[in-house]
Amino acid sequence: MWIIDAMTKTRIEAFSDGVFAIAITLLVLDLHADLSVIHQWPAYAAFVFGFLTIGVMWVNHHHLMHQFGHVDRVLLFLNLLLLMGIVFIPFPTALIAERIRGGDARAATLAYGCTGIFLAIFFNALWHYGAQGRRLLRADARVREISGITRSYLPGVPLYLTGTLLSFASPVASACVYAAIAVFYAVSNTFFGKEPSG
Amino acid sequence: MWIIDAMTKTRIEAFSDGVFAIAITLLVLDLHADLSVIHQWPAYAAFVFGFLTIGVMWVNHHHLMHQFGHVDRVLLFLNLLLLMGIVFIPFPTALIAERIRGGDARAATLAYGCTGIFLAIFFNALWHYGAQGRRLLRADARVREISGITRSYLPGVPLYLTGTLLSFASPVASACVYAAIAVFYAVSNTFFGKEPSG
Amino acid sequence: MWIIDAMTKTRIEAFSDGVFAIAITLLVLDLHADLSVIHQWPAYAAFVFGFLTIGVMWVNHHHLMHQFGHVDRVLLFLNLLLLMGIVFIPFPTALIAERIRGGDARAATLAYGCTGIFLAIFFNALWHYGAQGRRLLRADARVREISGITRSYLPGVPLYLTGTLLSFASPVASACVYAAIAVFYAVSNTFFGKEPSG
Amino acid sequence: MWIIDAMTKTRIEAFSDGVFAIAITLLVLDLHADLSVIHQWPAYAAFVFGFLTIGVMWVNHHHLMHQFGHVDRVLLFLNLLLLMGIVFIPFPTALIAERIRGGDARAATLAYGCTGIFLAIFFNALWHYGAQGRRLLRADARVREISGITRSYLPGVPLYLTGTLLSFASPVASACVYAAIAVFYAVSNTFFGKEPSG
Repeated sequence: MWIIDAMTKTRIEAFSDGVFAIAITLLVLDLHADLSVIHQWPAYAAFVFGFLTIGVMWVNHHHLMHQFGHVDRVLLFLNLLLLMGIVFIPFPTALIAERIRGGDARAATLAYGCTGIFLAIFFNALWHYGAQGRRLLRADARVREISGITRSYLPGVPLYLTGTLLSFASPVASACVYAAIAVFYAVSNTFFGKEPSG
Repeated sequence: MWIIDAMTKTRIEAFSDGVFAIAITLLVLDLHADLSVIHQWPAYAAFVFGFLTIGVMWVNHHHLMHQFGHVDRVLLFLNLLLLMGIVFIPFPTALIAERIRGGDARAATLAYGCTGIFLAIFFNALWHYGAQGRRLLRADARVREISGITRSYLPGVPLYLTGTLLSFASPVASACVYAAIAVFYAVSNTFFGKEPSG
Repeated sequence: MWIIDAMTKTRIEAFSDGVFAIAITLLVLDLHADLSVIHQWPAYAAFVFGFLTIGVMWVNHHHLMHQFGHVDRVLLFLNLLLLMGIVFIPFPTALIAERIRGGDARAATLAYGCTGIFLAIFFNALWHYGAQGRRLLRADARVREISGITRSYLPGVPLYLTGTLLSFASPVASACVYAAIAVFYAVSNTFFGKEPSG
Repeated sequence: MWIIDAMTKTRIEAFSDGVFAIAITLLVLDLHADLSVIHQWPAYAAFVFGFLTIGVMWVNHHHLMHQFGHVDRVLLFLNLLLLMGIVFIPFPTALIAERIRGGDARAATLAYGCTGIFLAIFFNALWHYGAQGRRLLRADARVREISGITRSYLPGVPLYLTGTLLSFASPVASACVYAAIAVFYAVSNTFFGKEPSG
């Protein structure tokens, strides 16, 4: 039975890794499709920004799944919905890059914010579903690490909600908030995160 | 010999996971290619709908392959044909999203229905080929789970056939049937499906 | 040392599976990019044909790599060149679908034929490099299976060369030869091939 | 703990393999998107050249990661930045293919050179971070192999810097330098590289 669980979890991770890898790679198609961007920095900024955002989320997903010892059908579907949000990221990122200085700036930052809220909700849902009463946790998952993950996911929804509401006042300010959230997560994960083997 | 079989099955799963992951991720390209969809909900609906459809089929494929202990060449090719249908899904889904309110609505719902029938046939073929006389089943695969899968695959062909025939009367009604089939499978799989470790 | 080799071989297979999976999935983009193909059968034929061709080559690659117990740098690069040919397949396939009834039919069938010859050469090169003096073969690889693979790869180059030369006389005849080669390999692999566990 | 580390490293490799596989396969989309390239050799040259460049970097990445016994968060992020460079390669490669004979030749070779410098920096960073004081090295990693890798990464930055600076004098000369670097790495890796199994 242990073997069966392990195989199943492995296949979810493989599928998720595939989706992350493709979503992160498709970002370059936005540059590709239009070689005239050679002199336009917003397209490059969107590429770098989208890449790091998806990359940080991959690291988080990795860290989260690592705490689970087995999986069930509900987790499969929560994970599927989370991946739907991941795959969607390049679209509002490209929208912001193209529209931030034009008439549709607000629609672009709203779209990005809603994607962020969606992702924050499903990262929390995935984690709480599996960690609640240690439903899916590994037997040796440590209390400190578990509460650390729970804490680190708390600010996600309020942060993205703030950025989304700011869209109505100033799309540019909203885009800056999104950038700050991404940098905050990247830095806190790299330098203050627990090591996988911690 | 056991090791050899296990490796081979692993590689089929890895390849299948890759194809599922790519097919599901390519859906976002339809949004990407045309940033003007920002105000058009059918494109978003097609994205969500296509994503969940492929996702549910991935869960089913996962569950099915899990019952098999080894594979043979015929299964490899049945699986290949099934994957061809999976990869095709985004195309009629996009057709419906674009054409449901225009002149080609019938062609779009017919294309979707034929894809659904094709998929239902090959899900059944894959399963029956492997389960017939326990040809490829794991030694410890349980009779109850096997007959459960057999039963759950039975309505696929008639359901999609109904939707396809309805295209001639009303493409919109046909599209609603497809949506209902997808929701039915998603819900029944998530809440009533057997757990992998069951 | 055995572990090291096994890991390395696993990573080559994972990378190859990824490339095969992506190449086979990208075929649907040709339909996607232009939703107007809804009434044009050559585009569908190219999709099915390209999918089966890449799929059969994946099965062959799988079977071939299965005989190897370890890998070296030269094999890595031969495999890379083979994958370059695999990734290229959708391009001449699409060319034939679009041009077979127009002025560039000959260029299209020539491009397809050269791709086929390239692939046949590198399948042979990969196999002979690894099998020569049992350089990379598993200790338990059987003589009968080895000579079976050697024999099955022999007709590849002459067959595709015939199709390529036929291009100058009649592009349509040439396309029929390519279709016959693909069907021949698909059928012979499915029904007459040795089982992986054979 | 050993198991945990090994799993984590496996998932990084799987994710990296996915990104490499997708980046290398997307190259063919540049041909695909415009079937009129049938008579234009620079597009084919860019395909072959980009494929081999990414392929050689995959082999190097493979060799490098193979020396590591475990990973940490900083390595995860250095690897992410390296992958960002890998994914970017097809873009300046396509630029050179399209622009080398036109007015934007300098911008194209500058873009390629900066990508090469970025990649050389992060290959060195990844390696030195992990090898410094044997931080992440396997217990059985050999001194000779380690210093061999260190040496082979040294010329990367100066070589690409030379090509980049040459852009100002002659874009064509610069492109030739890039081609020479790629051929040098491919040949030295295939014929003079240490075998994975040392």
